Amino acid sequence: MKIIHIILLFAALLSSYIPYITSVNNDFCVADLSLPNTPLGYPCKSEKDVTIDDFVFSGFVAGNASKIFNLGITFVNVDNLPGLNGLGISTVRADLGVNGSVPLHSHPDATELVIIVESQVNIGFITPTKVFLKDAKPGDVIVVPKGQLHFLVNTGAKKAVAFAAFSSSNPSVQTLDLLLFGNDLSTHVLSQTTLLDVAQIQKLKAAFGGKN
Amino acid sequence: MKIIHIILLFAALLSSYIPYITSVNNDFCVADLSLPNTPLGYPCKSEKDVTIDDFVFSGFVAGNASKIFNLGITFVNVDNLPGLNGLGISTVRADLGVNGSVPLHSHPDATELVIIVESQVNIGFITPTKVFLKDAKPGDVIVVPKGQLHFLVNTGAKKAVAFAAFSSSNPSVQTLDLLLFGNDLSTHVLSQTTLLDVAQIQKLKAAFGGKN
Amino acid sequence: MKIIHIILLFAALLSSYIPYITSVNNDFCVADLSLPNTPLGYPCKSEKDVTIDDFVFSGFVAGNASKIFNLGITFVNVDNLPGLNGLGISTVRADLGVNGSVPLHSHPDATELVIIVESQVNIGFITPTKVFLKDAKPGDVIVVPKGQLHFLVNTGAKKAVAFAAFSSSNPSVQTLDLLLFGNDLSTHVLSQTTLLDVAQIQKLKAAFGGKN
Amino acid sequence: MKIIHIILLFAALLSSYIPYITSVNNDFCVADLSLPNTPLGYPCKSEKDVTIDDFVFSGFVAGNASKIFNLGITFVNVDNLPGLNGLGISTVRADLGVNGSVPLHSHPDATELVIIVESQVNIGFITPTKVFLKDAKPGDVIVVPKGQLHFLVNTGAKKAVAFAAFSSSNPSVQTLDLLLFGNDLSTHVLSQTTLLDVAQIQKLKAAFGGKN
Amino acid sequence: MKIIHIILLFAALLSSYIPYITSVNNDFCVADLSLPNTPLGYPCKSEKDVTIDDFVFSGFVAGNASKIFNLGITFVNVDNLPGLNGLGISTVRADLGVNGSVPLHSHPDATELVIIVESQVNIGFITPTKVFLKDAKPGDVIVVPKGQLHFLVNTGAKKAVAFAAFSSSNPSVQTLDLLLFGNDLSTHVLSQTTLLDVAQIQKLKAAFGGKN
Amino acid sequence: MKIIHIILLFAALLSSYIPYITSVNNDFCVADLSLPNTPLGYPCKSEKDVTIDDFVFSGFVAGNASKIFNLGITFVNVDNLPGLNGLGISTVRADLGVNGSVPLHSHPDATELVIIVESQVNIGFITPTKVFLKDAKPGDVIVVPKGQLHFLVNTGAKKAVAFAAFSSSNPSVQTLDLLLFGNDLSTHVLSQTTLLDVAQIQKLKAAFGGKN
Repeated sequence: MKIIHIILLFAALLSSYIPYITSVNNDFCVADLSLPNTPLGYPCKSEKDVTIDDFVFSGFVAGNASKIFNLGITFVNVDNLPGLNGLGISTVRADLGVNGSVPLHSHPDATELVIIVESQVNIGFITPTKVFLKDAKPGDVIVVPKGQLHFLVNTGAKKAVAFAAFSSSNPSVQTLDLLLFGNDLSTHVLSQTTLLDVAQIQKLKAAFGGKN
Repeated sequence: MKIIHIILLFAALLSSYIPYITSVNNDFCVADLSLPNTPLGYPCKSEKDVTIDDFVFSGFVAGNASKIFNLGITFVNVDNLPGLNGLGISTVRADLGVNGSVPLHSHPDATELVIIVESQVNIGFITPTKVFLKDAKPGDVIVVPKGQLHFLVNTGAKKAVAFAAFSSSNPSVQTLDLLLFGNDLSTHVLSQTTLLDVAQIQKLKAAFGGKN
Repeated sequence: MKIIHIILLFAALLSSYIPYITSVNNDFCVADLSLPNTPLGYPCKSEKDVTIDDFVFSGFVAGNASKIFNLGITFVNVDNLPGLNGLGISTVRADLGVNGSVPLHSHPDATELVIIVESQVNIGFITPTKVFLKDAKPGDVIVVPKGQLHFLVNTGAKKAVAFAAFSSSNPSVQTLDLLLFGNDLSTHVLSQTTLLDVAQIQKLKAAFGGKN
Repeated sequence: MKIIHIILLFAALLSSYIPYITSVNNDFCVADLSLPNTPLGYPCKSEKDVTIDDFVFSGFVAGNASKIFNLGITFVNVDNLPGLNGLGISTVRADLGVNGSVPLHSHPDATELVIIVESQVNIGFITPTKVFLKDAKPGDVIVVPKGQLHFLVNTGAKKAVAFAAFSSSNPSVQTLDLLLFGNDLSTHVLSQTTLLDVAQIQKLKAAFGGKN
Repeated sequence: MKIIHIILLFAALLSSYIPYITSVNNDFCVADLSLPNTPLGYPCKSEKDVTIDDFVFSGFVAGNASKIFNLGITFVNVDNLPGLNGLGISTVRADLGVNGSVPLHSHPDATELVIIVESQVNIGFITPTKVFLKDAKPGDVIVVPKGQLHFLVNTGAKKAVAFAAFSSSNPSVQTLDLLLFGNDLSTHVLSQTTLLDVAQIQKLKAAFGGKN
Repeated sequence: MKIIHIILLFAALLSSYIPYITSVNNDFCVADLSLPNTPLGYPCKSEKDVTIDDFVFSGFVAGNASKIFNLGITFVNVDNLPGLNGLGISTVRADLGVNGSVPLHSHPDATELVIIVESQVNIGFITPTKVFLKDAKPGDVIVVPKGQLHFLVNTGAKKAVAFAAFSSSNPSVQTLDLLLFGNDLSTHVLSQTTLLDVAQIQKLKAAFGGKN
């Protein structure tokens, strides 16, 4: 077989070899965030400018907690980790204080896979035909299919930590309260199309910054 | 050129011709609704059993109006038009009486293209950053991007008719009131994760059939 | 539960709240038609420049009828409704005079869902193995799977109106006569590869503007 | 570094090793042709029954030539090479006698990449706005984008051979003559929607087996 | 506005209301693992049989460590969490002892997003043109684009823990050593097509259970 | 029927006809290689600048043989055939001298369909659970599913020729030796994560230009 002879020969002939079977890579397209986005992701940064920093996010730690929900959120998506561009995945870390919660929201275009790391968490999602609920603890992994309204509530006695992965590199986040009460849609129309009481709408518009 | 000679020859030789350039069709897969669905659609009905009836839905007329919203709805999707299977499109007809409305809802997986046929309709969708509103009239076509909460209100003096097409052969329909108030999710958790008042929730649970 | 206390607290703390659970929207990408297209759609217009006008097309009315086919056509696709970009849907309105028709054509990349609104229409599509025909009337919805040659003929006593939706935001339209007879492909080659008579080709090339 | 020690240890511990980093393969799904197809391909044959024969087609040789077009065709797709299932590729071999041709046809769902192996071939495709033509010879590769009507004519002095690959594991083949003249669509309707002469239609229906 | 009147009316009329705007859900398809897989996922379990258990995996804890690599692995994919079916996401937990490593491997069809939870980890992936390396610590998130050979080495003084998410509900795992040395591909051919020494191959085949 | 009258009328009225049923083409997007790539392909060249040359590659002949593997390779992908952009197909020609081989490599994102044209070729691919081998000869077509390590060895007495098609317009090529031994990944880490001997690594790094 004399592989060693082939090797020696090979070393001598490397320059003629390389052009014919050079490896080629087309499996990633790091986002050039300075260019306009497209329906399937950002244009690619020039390959020569790509470094390890394009594939690393540092700072996946507890976000500052909002007092109201006792919730800290840290997102990692294509906007702060450009190597995710076009690859259909991203992540988030949620830190819920005692009695803290992640309010009702959905991601129309992304499934969420939740990993419970600390404390006990009541997690639920609402499908049109049924509510699915789990009192989850560390070691539990829960999948929330794309498009379903869902929430988390820390039911344990200490801070809860959950990591979640999304099946999109830039999932949309539709928080129900902000959609309903954080804009200038008229109270009249909102009441007519939700049957919520006018007084209820006005109270929550005041809380979430909505008008009209 | 003598095409006619070729033709005559051709007729004589047809039997030898057919096997070699027979046309082949793989562009549709009529749903066999008796088999389990898959993530991308139903298994295909045997081609020999496919008829024109698999591609036609008759009865795209005004649905019976619910008194509360003064709304009639007629859906055409893969479940009643099996030829749509795997083809990514379906339709709906909405008939809104005077002051009628289509309540706030979303389709996480389908864009909706609305054609206003009769009367005047206030149509709106709520994105996380802005509300988009249109006082639409016959001759207007409005696109509601997938995943956005939206509504229609008949603001004209007569019955309104709208046709809409979806970019899915079986779009999900998430009606906000039914999701929030039509199931057994506890009032406590719902209040905690939406900040809606307990009394408001109880009132609407009574209306929409929810419990707890 | 004391939701009201939470609300009051919330209003006071809104500025610290917003950064942590701001809703995010990535479900649409309005076309910037001034930039080069890509295989999956146009680059996105800057979100701050997007208005309701990007989602509305006004003028979905009868097109001017061509005398020859007694047909008026009005297309709504990404080129005149940029909010459709990347969303996989568009629409067309066809007005057929008495005896009018939509000539044989196909959309290789788009299924067409036809809604008959007025008169009676004979609609058909030709698969490699079978012809599917329907004498359709108002209230009928017919699906023509992507890639199939199809036609409509007004067989009623009055003007026919049909709306159709496509499973593409910019469907290609391949009208058979224009493809065969509207260009400079030589009569010789066309005859050789279709077996159409030379005289027939020459007559229709004269009609459709073709040469050679 | 003492890799050898690790190796020796490894051999001793192999049984405990295997369960933890066993390789897993989900990159293919050989068609079980006995089950109903789905919109995205056949269900998978059980992995234990898969053999090399599922990935090999033998007989990619010249097909029997039809006398009329002097054309032999040999298709390799998922129906005779089940390992192609779900993988989006297939191939065909065309042997064209002197003056032979591949008649005008299209593949709505598949791009065709043509490799000219022997003789000279005039290849063309017709887009709605332009005809693209090439007098191709061995060493030429021509791409015909999906959905475009195209043809090949052997313009050389000897038999022509071409291989082609499709971007589908089961491309549809829509041969124009068969679609127009090989079925029972009435001559009247066909003439009305194509403007072809009745006599022309009747002549070609006789040739291609059509009726009415 | 008198919403309360509408509500009262509504409660009375609920039975007539429900049929017209019932919510519909098509956003998930829980795997029926007893049926043959398809190229895009398993057929769906009947919706009436779906429970919260279909969406929860319990046991996402440290796997038993193999002595050789000092590595414990726990996979969560569609095979043990059937709610993931068709949703394009899954996860894994890796526990690396001191000096432990995840050997060189790739996932052709899945991007991997790695979250470092404990200790320090040297993570690297090899593209055809460059090696990307990171000495990562808790709080770092690293994306390994689909198809790239990659590895992890625990370089800290204590046990390392990493969670990773994949952009596939059933990613393939191609561990280099098992592919090269764990089967019956002949040493001769393997040497000829890799230039590895025969002795090297024989040694590792002995370790990984390969023959010939 | 009087088709001829219609024709005559038609010719007279052509100018009014064209605007209403003009054919439209959106089935291709020729790459503008001067603009940044996107995750799904290059932006499109302006349609008016597209010519037949964008769809033809000339020079699909034997590549210069590397002495070491006795292999010549000629790739045709979007970079030298811009008409392939976004269409999911490309091709390669491999010429293997006597005893020549294509070394072990994979294409994570592309299935390869191999057509044996001359000589006898031993072709194999390695899945995680089994090796698939074929002694192939002219007339054999072999499919190598995406992501599988594979090789070819000319086992015949003369030069071998194979054509292959890929299910990607720009497949990545990951040649094992170049990935392992052609870069600056440290010998220590490579040995630790592959269990290859240090001496073996050093020998092949010397051959393939790697360092450290």
